[in-house]
Amino acid sequence: MLSEEENQTLTQVGPGTPMGDLLRRYWHPVAAAGELDERPTRPVRILGEDLVVYKTGPGAYGLIERFCAHRGTDLAYGIVEDAALRCPRHGWLYAESGLCIDMPLEEEMPAEPIKLNAYQAREKAGMVWAYLGPEPAPQIPDWEPFTWQGGIVQVVLSVLHCNWLQCQENTMDGVDMELFVDAMEAARHDGTPPPLPPLDFSFDEFEHGYVVRPGDGESAVTKTSLWPNGLFNGDNRSCRFEWRVPIDDETTLDFAWFFDRAAPGTPEGLQTRVHFWYSQTREEETGEALRSHLLNKKFAIWLNQEPILDRTKEHLTEGDAGVIMLRNKLFGQISLLQDGGEPKALIYDPAQNQKLRLPDTAPLFAAAPPEDEAAFPYLAGQPEDAAEAYRRVIESWRESEPGSP
Amino acid sequence: MLSEEENQTLTQVGPGTPMGDLLRRYWHPVAAAGELDERPTRPVRILGEDLVVYKTGPGAYGLIERFCAHRGTDLAYGIVEDAALRCPRHGWLYAESGLCIDMPLEEEMPAEPIKLNAYQAREKAGMVWAYLGPEPAPQIPDWEPFTWQGGIVQVVLSVLHCNWLQCQENTMDGVDMELFVDAMEAARHDGTPPPLPPLDFSFDEFEHGYVVRPGDGESAVTKTSLWPNGLFNGDNRSCRFEWRVPIDDETTLDFAWFFDRAAPGTPEGLQTRVHFWYSQTREEETGEALRSHLLNKKFAIWLNQEPILDRTKEHLTEGDAGVIMLRNKLFGQISLLQDGGEPKALIYDPAQNQKLRLPDTAPLFAAAPPEDEAAFPYLAGQPEDAAEAYRRVIESWRESEPGSP
Amino acid sequence: MLSEEENQTLTQVGPGTPMGDLLRRYWHPVAAAGELDERPTRPVRILGEDLVVYKTGPGAYGLIERFCAHRGTDLAYGIVEDAALRCPRHGWLYAESGLCIDMPLEEEMPAEPIKLNAYQAREKAGMVWAYLGPEPAPQIPDWEPFTWQGGIVQVVLSVLHCNWLQCQENTMDGVDMELFVDAMEAARHDGTPPPLPPLDFSFDEFEHGYVVRPGDGESAVTKTSLWPNGLFNGDNRSCRFEWRVPIDDETTLDFAWFFDRAAPGTPEGLQTRVHFWYSQTREEETGEALRSHLLNKKFAIWLNQEPILDRTKEHLTEGDAGVIMLRNKLFGQISLLQDGGEPKALIYDPAQNQKLRLPDTAPLFAAAPPEDEAAFPYLAGQPEDAAEAYRRVIESWRESEPGSP
Repeated sequence: MLSEEENQTLTQVGPGTPMGDLLRRYWHPVAAAGELDERPTRPVRILGEDLVVYKTGPGAYGLIERFCAHRGTDLAYGIVEDAALRCPRHGWLYAESGLCIDMPLEEEMPAEPIKLNAYQAREKAGMVWAYLGPEPAPQIPDWEPFTWQGGIVQVVLSVLHCNWLQCQENTMDGVDMELFVDAMEAARHDGTPPPLPPLDFSFDEFEHGYVVRPGDGESAVTKTSLWPNGLFNGDNRSCRFEWRVPIDDETTLDFAWFFDRAAPGTPEGLQTRVHFWYSQTREEETGEALRSHLLNKKFAIWLNQEPILDRTKEHLTEGDAGVIMLRNKLFGQISLLQDGGEPKALIYDPAQNQKLRLPDTAPLFAAAPPEDEAAFPYLAGQPEDAAEAYRRVIESWRESEPGSP
Repeated sequence: MLSEEENQTLTQVGPGTPMGDLLRRYWHPVAAAGELDERPTRPVRILGEDLVVYKTGPGAYGLIERFCAHRGTDLAYGIVEDAALRCPRHGWLYAESGLCIDMPLEEEMPAEPIKLNAYQAREKAGMVWAYLGPEPAPQIPDWEPFTWQGGIVQVVLSVLHCNWLQCQENTMDGVDMELFVDAMEAARHDGTPPPLPPLDFSFDEFEHGYVVRPGDGESAVTKTSLWPNGLFNGDNRSCRFEWRVPIDDETTLDFAWFFDRAAPGTPEGLQTRVHFWYSQTREEETGEALRSHLLNKKFAIWLNQEPILDRTKEHLTEGDAGVIMLRNKLFGQISLLQDGGEPKALIYDPAQNQKLRLPDTAPLFAAAPPEDEAAFPYLAGQPEDAAEAYRRVIESWRESEPGSP
Repeated sequence: MLSEEENQTLTQVGPGTPMGDLLRRYWHPVAAAGELDERPTRPVRILGEDLVVYKTGPGAYGLIERFCAHRGTDLAYGIVEDAALRCPRHGWLYAESGLCIDMPLEEEMPAEPIKLNAYQAREKAGMVWAYLGPEPAPQIPDWEPFTWQGGIVQVVLSVLHCNWLQCQENTMDGVDMELFVDAMEAARHDGTPPPLPPLDFSFDEFEHGYVVRPGDGESAVTKTSLWPNGLFNGDNRSCRFEWRVPIDDETTLDFAWFFDRAAPGTPEGLQTRVHFWYSQTREEETGEALRSHLLNKKFAIWLNQEPILDRTKEHLTEGDAGVIMLRNKLFGQISLLQDGGEPKALIYDPAQNQKLRLPDTAPLFAAAPPEDEAAFPYLAGQPEDAAEAYRRVIESWRESEPGSP
């Protein structure tokens, strides 16, 4: 149970807030790279700031304040000129630094330079990442799966109307909620009591976050909680990352990245592009949270809480050891940062940022395989071409390993 | 005209408010029983409290706080186990008393028991009723029509974005608004002045509320205002109850129950189940309040007022005698309750709660019969199977009494 | 750059505010006359006041407070009786003066008269105009195009969720934004830099507002800013008026009136009625501001700003001379009014209000002709019959002047 002030400290992310300062020390994915190919500018709201990201060349991006310093026009309608962005209204041109470098309708530039806030944006693994912190910026972690070939990648974005922390706390919750729910729902129908998940878990801190295992820490890893707002799950054949990027205090962008490997011998050309899509989270007609897919079941839990969970009312127990560990670490890192220290899990040396490995986890569907085994089980709203590509990958294994699921 | 404070007293319904305390002494319908058959748990908001109702057996229900005491998970996703409800996230199990009786992931239960607010819920006449007041609970009134056979029952729920009192005051308004409006609209088209309704009414208090009659109280009854938030209208052949259940200060659940008797000799099997449905109140495209049916016309009036009508600006006249009587009674009952007295219309003795009769009223459609006489005239959105059943009942009379309407 | 207080002064329009007082000295269009033919009553919100306008006869209207003084019923459901409006609930009847003149359910009228706020409403050029200021009311300007024959008139209403001033400031902005944007978007595709608009403009005040011209004031007029919240653009063959009518501080009704003349010799009967329609401003699926038509491109700019533009953050330059002039004039007129003076551009003498001429402007499509030259280029959502009539007019010129656009 937290005090109201402690709950605010952990959940407020705007400029100048303690948690906002901490989160600004890390890179966060904010768009699928493919979105910027469709249209070279895109409004982005992150950590309570309204920005516009724009594509300046292959893999290169600018990221500046959204509204023109002149008279507040939306620069998401701007025109990209090399590395600069021109306001569509009176043509003010902003460099990547945010500096206004041209005012075509004025005889001369003002004596006092005009400058918008500007940040860094870079592409990695089909995603556009943003860094809103002080210079120098750290590296975007080069997770090994980002380098894999021979499979398909899907980038799926879900806008959740709740605070980021109630999502991230789930990564330090031993019980893998969605499976538990499935098991219990199955039990409801055949009348048998639900199989209980393991009673205790170990949460071992390592350089990139926490490794979660059932029991005393000897068993296979269940999942990895990536510091400070991520998750990794899966193995060499099928894995996912998830980041819970704060849009503002009451909204979170769940940013998921999936890799699914095709069986050896599958013809090339399988992966022609990174598939990306926005997932719906509510039923159109009733407005109820969707529960049709694995992550949607989780989302439903978070969305049906208060937008910012009131942690003054909770009753934590021994089973919440992971959640308590996460909160204490967050408080500790906030203090560390305020004392001038360097927060956890930052990599500055490119030589140390190569194919970073994370522990494999047990296959995800041991407990509850989906009915259609070649259907994407995680998120609703998959477009047809992504579904088709995913199906080909899943079926490639069936053909190469007759009898395998 | 009320003071601002008086208006607040009559319209605020949350825990600890004077009117909230008074309304908590009565049973209120909160769901159609059929809803709980489709899914055994259902979120319910009533009198400003978020609850979950769940079905524990034939006609038996639990009613507890909506959010788990552990970490705020929505118990509307819970799993019913006998008379208890298990949280889907970590399995905490709540008894009907609200007491947490199992924490499967903990070695032992906490020394200090954890308890959610819990209330009573019961089924009667195809509806699930809730009682949020102090023990002992009174009886749910056993209105005689609840015991009738040989006709069809419809339960129709409409969520209205306005305070309960502007709905209920209408029961003490002599003018039967929807008919007046119809008459005036007809007059608009043929140019004749609208026929005026009777100029005065009598409002006679009786044990269950008020009986409304035109003139000096000798004429046929127009309607019955059920204390404190209901309405009865009709006779042995066709009748309706309506309750205006406060969801919170700015939202009301209009809960309507209709009985329509089939003609004698109609084959059995007519009534196979209670039909229930949620009625829409606004046009999909324009968002304007629907006025297509009789009750929708009333809803339109209330919905186009402020959500909480500002009674400091009104100008009451002699014609508002009923409304004034209702308000004074509410103020009086609030005082009585605060002085430790027992409010009006409570029945504690089961022997006195059998087939309670209410006065018949004149047939409703004398003034404005609908164009299609076998179409349900009250509420929009009737599903096809209910419409078909209603039509068979209406037409059974035409066959048995040739020449009758 | 304004102070916060100055920004409030220019943007707040409710009763008793300085700008609200100034704007109340002018007539504002509030509905298409045709809307009142379809249904004789209509709710109207203007300058922060909720009113109902109702048609009392050919070209004659009443305009009173929206909610009945009795118990707050919406008079938009009222029944028109000659020049009075009757409440549908208990029949209170209001004269055009707002005075309650009949209470059919009361034995006698109250000693103290009951009176709603009432204003003037009149029809001109297919529009219903409202005047909310002190008596005597000025004339509704008799702009010459209102008297033209032999063409089609379209009245198009767009509800914009932003303050009126960010729309009106655009009339004193030399750069004709939508053309600039088009040119820049074209440039984006073929890689050439966009052609720059003229670098400076003159803004010449005259009795009805300001005439905007490029350069030193000798060139053809670009547009006319009508005092205090209008715009005129076009010539004898094709022209448009636009008024930005404040609904409240955060909402504006963009009220556009178009005249398009048919070629000489076109058979009569072309113009059978004034076409009117509400234009959509956002894409249905995404909610993004529409940019499919010329005015929608402008709307998109305003709608993607804050609802009330924060003018404490802007950086004005020499190119904003017109905007600064407009603001200074508004401040000056507010002071003048507070000192008892008569604001600009009011006409009281009917003899001086006949066929008022405005300067012709250069044809609008020199820079960016639409692809389908016979399609209406200004606003989305044109209904089929208006599109057909517009097409016939445009094509009449092609037939009469072979080779003309």
